[in-house]
Amino acid sequence: MTDLPDHLLAGYRNFMTGRYVAEGDRFRTLAREGQAPETMVIACCDSRAAPEVIFDSGPGELFVVRNVANLVPPYAPDGEFHSTSAALEFAVQALKVKNIVVVGHGRCGGIRAALAPASEPLSPGDFIGKWMSLLAPSASAVSGNALLTAGERQTALERISIRYSIANLRTFPCINILEGKGRLKLYGAWFDISTGELWVMNRQTGDFERPEIA
Amino acid sequence: MTDLPDHLLAGYRNFMTGRYVAEGDRFRTLAREGQAPETMVIACCDSRAAPEVIFDSGPGELFVVRNVANLVPPYAPDGEFHSTSAALEFAVQALKVKNIVVVGHGRCGGIRAALAPASEPLSPGDFIGKWMSLLAPSASAVSGNALLTAGERQTALERISIRYSIANLRTFPCINILEGKGRLKLYGAWFDISTGELWVMNRQTGDFERPEIA
Amino acid sequence: MTDLPDHLLAGYRNFMTGRYVAEGDRFRTLAREGQAPETMVIACCDSRAAPEVIFDSGPGELFVVRNVANLVPPYAPDGEFHSTSAALEFAVQALKVKNIVVVGHGRCGGIRAALAPASEPLSPGDFIGKWMSLLAPSASAVSGNALLTAGERQTALERISIRYSIANLRTFPCINILEGKGRLKLYGAWFDISTGELWVMNRQTGDFERPEIA
Amino acid sequence: MTDLPDHLLAGYRNFMTGRYVAEGDRFRTLAREGQAPETMVIACCDSRAAPEVIFDSGPGELFVVRNVANLVPPYAPDGEFHSTSAALEFAVQALKVKNIVVVGHGRCGGIRAALAPASEPLSPGDFIGKWMSLLAPSASAVSGNALLTAGERQTALERISIRYSIANLRTFPCINILEGKGRLKLYGAWFDISTGELWVMNRQTGDFERPEIA
Repeated sequence: MTDLPDHLLAGYRNFMTGRYVAEGDRFRTLAREGQAPETMVIACCDSRAAPEVIFDSGPGELFVVRNVANLVPPYAPDGEFHSTSAALEFAVQALKVKNIVVVGHGRCGGIRAALAPASEPLSPGDFIGKWMSLLAPSASAVSGNALLTAGERQTALERISIRYSIANLRTFPCINILEGKGRLKLYGAWFDISTGELWVMNRQTGDFERPEIA
Repeated sequence: MTDLPDHLLAGYRNFMTGRYVAEGDRFRTLAREGQAPETMVIACCDSRAAPEVIFDSGPGELFVVRNVANLVPPYAPDGEFHSTSAALEFAVQALKVKNIVVVGHGRCGGIRAALAPASEPLSPGDFIGKWMSLLAPSASAVSGNALLTAGERQTALERISIRYSIANLRTFPCINILEGKGRLKLYGAWFDISTGELWVMNRQTGDFERPEIA
Repeated sequence: MTDLPDHLLAGYRNFMTGRYVAEGDRFRTLAREGQAPETMVIACCDSRAAPEVIFDSGPGELFVVRNVANLVPPYAPDGEFHSTSAALEFAVQALKVKNIVVVGHGRCGGIRAALAPASEPLSPGDFIGKWMSLLAPSASAVSGNALLTAGERQTALERISIRYSIANLRTFPCINILEGKGRLKLYGAWFDISTGELWVMNRQTGDFERPEIA
Repeated sequence: MTDLPDHLLAGYRNFMTGRYVAEGDRFRTLAREGQAPETMVIACCDSRAAPEVIFDSGPGELFVVRNVANLVPPYAPDGEFHSTSAALEFAVQALKVKNIVVVGHGRCGGIRAALAPASEPLSPGDFIGKWMSLLAPSASAVSGNALLTAGERQTALERISIRYSIANLRTFPCINILEGKGRLKLYGAWFDISTGELWVMNRQTGDFERPEIA
């Protein structure tokens, strides 16, 4: 008996007999030469929104941070542990990625929590409450609008949070400088898990639009 | 022109004309009924170690946190933002996952940085230095061992860090309680990107072993 | 020379040599027996959003009111002239339609005017200003949200206005009674002129969703 | 299940698989550049007299008001809501249309109501009675003429109402001025739904004549 959940062991077997047969050379090259991804993705932990699935990406293609609600906190060099900021620093300074893409998605549980009326924390540490409080000002601006449906408030905050994370990316000096020099580009996208549609943020207007993929 | 890197747009096109055709019903059901993953994975941002690839997992299967070196910080209910702790709380308390798997991998850049002699930080914020300092006691114990090769020190710390993260998981009261009741199981695994081999942590001994998958 | 703009004369010629050849019997029957449309549509004057085009409807199918921004004013039996209320009364009481559909659309100039800061009226009568002031409370709730893009504010108000018109339909006693008896149904839809997509209002939630038409 | 009457959903499917395939580029251009119709049409709500059908018009061609009996009320800058006047102001001042065409039709139910002896209102609000009272002086002059048949009285009032609406258009200062400068033209037409024939108003005499279309 192996100390791994059965579904993971079965999945790993599929990987070894399927994808790894085709991509083994690519994995070996990447092991030898190191990774050099062009693109960093900041995505949500949600089990329905894996960036490698949505973008059908291969080994070595995407450097991926995943946290609840794909948030980037503002730059804060305060000596604390900052998981997302550490990953950003590594991607931008060590790997020298050319693109950072913030990928949000529909029906996000973190966003729903941010819009819900203040309630009991999930645990005494209230980590999720504290984490989602990054979005509190935006959330209150949206949740107070009774003319929008619950679904519309949810979608609105999901998209606002993507723009918020991109704005916070620009508070990091190294990102701001590299973007100014044209060596780093910032993007936003929103994935509709019910339809499979990807909505891409227009970098001029901030609007989300469906790309032509035909 | 679409505001998305070309390789992502091309990948998304593949997803829509390939995998989404086969899995659209699953996505629609997951959108309607919500996600209910049994397993949370804590993995590294590395572009060569995506858990959905290694475990060939489908939509709705894995709730995934990814940070540099797949670290879980110790429980610290201090009112600060804690990305990984927030995701843990959400997975355990809201989604009620049954398994948490920490997945490390070979040739990890974060682990390499932790083993390197103190050097210039990547940026003035030194986020990666601070983040990897979580492993500093383990790293110094390993890096001082001249009997191990550089490769052996790297692999040793990669595996030590998985056991460290699992130990930190148990500092979270809710995880500790649920594991005690048998309702939550903690696992470790290490992925060798050069061979595609997965080494699974023996939960009795902490050793990493290759599962039989034939 | 005929006293009609050339493009209308040319179009009429196409109608007579094309569609009328195929549908002449239908027109003759409708002339003899009178119209008996099942559905009333309240749509915008916009030249890009004709309901007969969007719904590919034939003669006798749709009883259509068109005004700027597809608005239904609230019930006001005050002895004044009420163009839309007169049409409603005729459709519901004389024609006994079974459905009333409010059809809004993207990039609506009336909605844009409602969201614009107070400006000079288009003419001393300020008819458009007065007409769009029906939406003023909704418009100010939306226009004050700086977290939304201009495009998002526009779409939000377009959809809010559809729900507003439907709510106003229910202030008409005869509509309210017939809906209660299940003899009249109220619907909303929003047409995206840039993609040709129709978004249908979910009558439970008020959300707009794309119907499956494959 | 979609919240839309079946015949509309089926019609929309036809639109998307038919006309939109051919005219999608035109819709996209119109979305991007905005509408710029040359012609405004004031037509009746009647389900048998859709101007886009009679004039075989394409997207972006006609800005259309539809109310019962295609009436234009006289200019009345009284601060009340005026649906038709608002649309006129928008068409003339914002869109700067070059033509306004009032299109009446045979067997118009609104005209029939105006000619009927005073009867019970359709509802306590009597909106249709009030609306058609705009035509009361004309209607009483016609209905008292025992030498005309009922059919002749109906046709006579249908055509009188077109001339009445055109006269009312000229009570709007901006329309009067632009017509005087030759920058706006006013037209009338009457559609015979039983034969498909269009009768165009001679602008010198006010007579309705059949255009040569061969």
